[in-house]
Amino acid sequence: MHGYSFYGKASRAFHQYPSLAKFLVVFTASGGGLLAITGGKPSPTTAYADPVQVQGDDQCKKKKKVVVLGTGWAGVSFLKNLKDPNYDVHVVSPHNYFAFTPLLPSVTCGTVEARSIVEPIRCIARKKGLDVNFREAVCYKIDADKKKVFCRSSQETNLGGKEEFSIDYDYLIIAMGAKSNTFNTPGVEEHAHFLKAVEDALRIRQSVIDCFERASLPSVSEEERRRILHFVIVGGGPTGVEFAAELHDFVTQDLAKLYPSVKGYAKITLLEAGDHILNMFDKRITAFAEEKFQRDGIDLKTGSMVVKVSDKEISTKVRATGQFVALPYGMVVWSTGIGPRPEVLDFMKQIGQPNRRALSTDEWLRVEGCENIYALGDCATIHQRRVMEDIASIFNKADKEKSGTLNLKDFQEVVGDICERYPQVEIYLKKKQMKNIADLLKASQKESSVQVDIETFTSALSEVDSQMKNLPATAQVAAQQGAYLANCFNRMEQCEKYPEGPIRFRGVGNHRFHPFRYKHFGQFAPLGGEQTAAQLPGDWISIGHSSQWLWYSVYASKLVSWRTRMLVISDWGRRFIFGRDSSRI
Amino acid sequence: MHGYSFYGKASRAFHQYPSLAKFLVVFTASGGGLLAITGGKPSPTTAYADPVQVQGDDQCKKKKKVVVLGTGWAGVSFLKNLKDPNYDVHVVSPHNYFAFTPLLPSVTCGTVEARSIVEPIRCIARKKGLDVNFREAVCYKIDADKKKVFCRSSQETNLGGKEEFSIDYDYLIIAMGAKSNTFNTPGVEEHAHFLKAVEDALRIRQSVIDCFERASLPSVSEEERRRILHFVIVGGGPTGVEFAAELHDFVTQDLAKLYPSVKGYAKITLLEAGDHILNMFDKRITAFAEEKFQRDGIDLKTGSMVVKVSDKEISTKVRATGQFVALPYGMVVWSTGIGPRPEVLDFMKQIGQPNRRALSTDEWLRVEGCENIYALGDCATIHQRRVMEDIASIFNKADKEKSGTLNLKDFQEVVGDICERYPQVEIYLKKKQMKNIADLLKASQKESSVQVDIETFTSALSEVDSQMKNLPATAQVAAQQGAYLANCFNRMEQCEKYPEGPIRFRGVGNHRFHPFRYKHFGQFAPLGGEQTAAQLPGDWISIGHSSQWLWYSVYASKLVSWRTRMLVISDWGRRFIFGRDSSRI
Repeated sequence: MHGYSFYGKASRAFHQYPSLAKFLVVFTASGGGLLAITGGKPSPTTAYADPVQVQGDDQCKKKKKVVVLGTGWAGVSFLKNLKDPNYDVHVVSPHNYFAFTPLLPSVTCGTVEARSIVEPIRCIARKKGLDVNFREAVCYKIDADKKKVFCRSSQETNLGGKEEFSIDYDYLIIAMGAKSNTFNTPGVEEHAHFLKAVEDALRIRQSVIDCFERASLPSVSEEERRRILHFVIVGGGPTGVEFAAELHDFVTQDLAKLYPSVKGYAKITLLEAGDHILNMFDKRITAFAEEKFQRDGIDLKTGSMVVKVSDKEISTKVRATGQFVALPYGMVVWSTGIGPRPEVLDFMKQIGQPNRRALSTDEWLRVEGCENIYALGDCATIHQRRVMEDIASIFNKADKEKSGTLNLKDFQEVVGDICERYPQVEIYLKKKQMKNIADLLKASQKESSVQVDIETFTSALSEVDSQMKNLPATAQVAAQQGAYLANCFNRMEQCEKYPEGPIRFRGVGNHRFHPFRYKHFGQFAPLGGEQTAAQLPGDWISIGHSSQWLWYSVYASKLVSWRTRMLVISDWGRRFIFGRDSSRI
Repeated sequence: MHGYSFYGKASRAFHQYPSLAKFLVVFTASGGGLLAITGGKPSPTTAYADPVQVQGDDQCKKKKKVVVLGTGWAGVSFLKNLKDPNYDVHVVSPHNYFAFTPLLPSVTCGTVEARSIVEPIRCIARKKGLDVNFREAVCYKIDADKKKVFCRSSQETNLGGKEEFSIDYDYLIIAMGAKSNTFNTPGVEEHAHFLKAVEDALRIRQSVIDCFERASLPSVSEEERRRILHFVIVGGGPTGVEFAAELHDFVTQDLAKLYPSVKGYAKITLLEAGDHILNMFDKRITAFAEEKFQRDGIDLKTGSMVVKVSDKEISTKVRATGQFVALPYGMVVWSTGIGPRPEVLDFMKQIGQPNRRALSTDEWLRVEGCENIYALGDCATIHQRRVMEDIASIFNKADKEKSGTLNLKDFQEVVGDICERYPQVEIYLKKKQMKNIADLLKASQKESSVQVDIETFTSALSEVDSQMKNLPATAQVAAQQGAYLANCFNRMEQCEKYPEGPIRFRGVGNHRFHPFRYKHFGQFAPLGGEQTAAQLPGDWISIGHSSQWLWYSVYASKLVSWRTRMLVISDWGRRFIFGRDSSRI
């Protein structure tokens, strides 16, 4: 930076006050009004050792080595929230950047540029001022006994074969994400596009232009032209729906003008195996989306199972009739859900979890059966402990006098811990509209006795476990898990001495940390044509142009850095004024 | 465009007044001041048939079919300047966009994004409102006898093999550009990067990041790290020098901060076979550039011929000592000049020009020995007619009375035509500081006689042909040729009736058009660190920060559309504030 004092200062101002980001205001030029979104992140008062003090202690005490695998939402959220300088952090990932994945569907059609939604990990680490080493490599093996991970560089250039190396760890954080699930459908890997990574989005963008250019050649027959311009999307989840909507906008708003001779041949088909698209959303949103797609001319085929993909045809089985239908296509995008990555699957086999859909962890995100290994994000699933497994222990802990019965006072002492340790209890109570566990006990008895024996206790709680649900595989969950874990690491020593978690019903004392608890802030489903459906907590539904502005504001404020924020907002502006670019690069 | 009335209007305003572009003002936040650049393009009063009238005539008269091969500077300049709607224009190119190539070195390091410097051909054609068909394909064969070109689609996707087709033409315009010249040096095609196309620039950008990521792996030895971070550039022309400067800025300003552990290993070497870099520029610029590179730590090796490139080493021969030196490298960029593309070479063989470095044309850009075929830009070279070949005819034309001698009056009648037909005469006169051809004749004689016979005439003009020079292979030349040719096409019919060119010395009457004349507006050589060298007409030299601002202004004003202009300017701003992005995508 030779002499860029003005720019330097401006740049530093942006970097030094990241909290400004929480109050990002998007000026909406029409319709949407003015909106400010706060980050809503819990900010506990962290009390780790003073950095200066640590430097002095450093000579006698070795820093603990934390290895983070992956730089997606979970891994980066962990890095961004880690404040304790007493860790030597090593990050291993095949991508040297973090990608803001919710905008990937926008990248496929050039509404937003790929580079606008990525931020180099080294920049993120540098801003933290922590001791972070990044390695661009894939971890292909984890040795939990020797506390070692084995890695391999992902480059295939002329730099001389694939470099291999291993890293020791004290703590291992697995946040490697997941891969698209093909359900072993033949031909999908070879012929379909996925939409998980930035590279996928770029390839899809090129492919769409390829189809239009190909269809414009004079020697192509009419039938072939119709095939080439048939875009098929498999999977009616939020990603598939958003991509279909983006593609429809791209074709009607931009490509139709530039390819007037072939625009009539373009067709978009969305295949969904279930009865409805967006089935995780409220029914009103599903209905609105389906109607909008019908109006837009997007061919929505629900109840269609894909059985095979060949180079020019996609074969489906119609569930209602059992018939097989073959659709000629030009491009297929596969977006039907996720499955474990091969490296994670290997590790799952190694630790005796071969049949799970993801790495199983306890409520503190620790991988079951392993020591000092954590898993979060899409590669992990929390195995919530059942109340019924621990019912005797809970009763005994509560029954301090060992009288064999519990009274109200006994309850009141443990009810908080029960609800914290077994969140399903709280959800069950809420559902039954009861205030507390005492109500539950009362309800299970005819007379309002205050004394409860173990049988009554068991029967009262017998249905609470039915309320357990796996968390969705979303960026929101991963980000909250990363922040939670970083916060645990920040207070590791403090909580060792003064545990803050609930009572150990099966052991002695308290758990060191509160268990992870997910807080849902709502979900968006962009439907194209400047309309978005939003489902916010408390069953608040909003569909239309105003939600689109909410979407713009929330996404702009959530972006990882001021650079990406400015780039994405200017991309949106560029799109409004000049449309999307159709150059094939 | 549903309801974007505001944006729509803004967009239309941009599109409808492209002449605004000529007065683009770059607001310079510091140092550079305020600068407005005018396009400086000659704008002749074109007089073609009225479009409305033409529509009526259309039924009786078939439109002439013009096929343009290539969408570089020459082809696009032709398209942008063609105004006569009486042509049915077909454009064939493997790229569906025009790239502003002078900014390619900036793209290699992310100073400017690739998408900011490209504009789809279909957008350019649509804005013209002309009848333009674009085909994304490569022309692999030209049949001049049957007036047909054979094309093949360039896609290798699952769309089903390579489509082939042919197009008839009435006029063919070859503007396919050139390819990098390896001078048959072994290993260059396999291991070196070129810098001719947008894809090349993107690959170089990825490769630089790959080298830094690779060097950061813990298992890499110190020697290997030094090799991987050794960037070698072959060729000290403007492109090689600009790339070296860009790379140096990228490494020192951005990467050094993000890769602190390996920054000490990075090294840039520039190999030049001649004695100096930038040898087409003034000596002062060369000296400044060489000194600056030395200060910057760029290792400049002049007099080094590359003899071989292997996967990890580049072998050079030092001209002074005759010694062979092998340099281990991580990345090589090859930028030593241009040679004909294979398709053009095939055509050159076919029409009997097998040994030329490019397609030979006359001064009207017509390919020699072909009918209705034009060639312009880097794939062509103008074969300027020698005065000595025509000396007898010139004398005879001038000697109207067939007296065997010329007097001053005879001269005055033809001198304008001579200077126009043989521009070397004018250059020679300028060099000798003579006002007109009469001075030249006088100088060749002892006594100031007014009567000149053919021997004296021949001896007086004997040295003028030494002033003939090929035009440089630059964007400026190609753009002027495209504009010139479009202008000829616009006035084809008019000039058929009323020829405007010089006398045909070897024939009857006048040439239909003025011959092409190149007007040099100067050249830039960006040297990094916000410094640029500029050589403007009249030997005006400017080096330093002010030239950098001139460079910014000129390039911004010359960009092809308002969209690219805005994007490039915002890229520059982003770079000032946030630096260059180092994500490997």
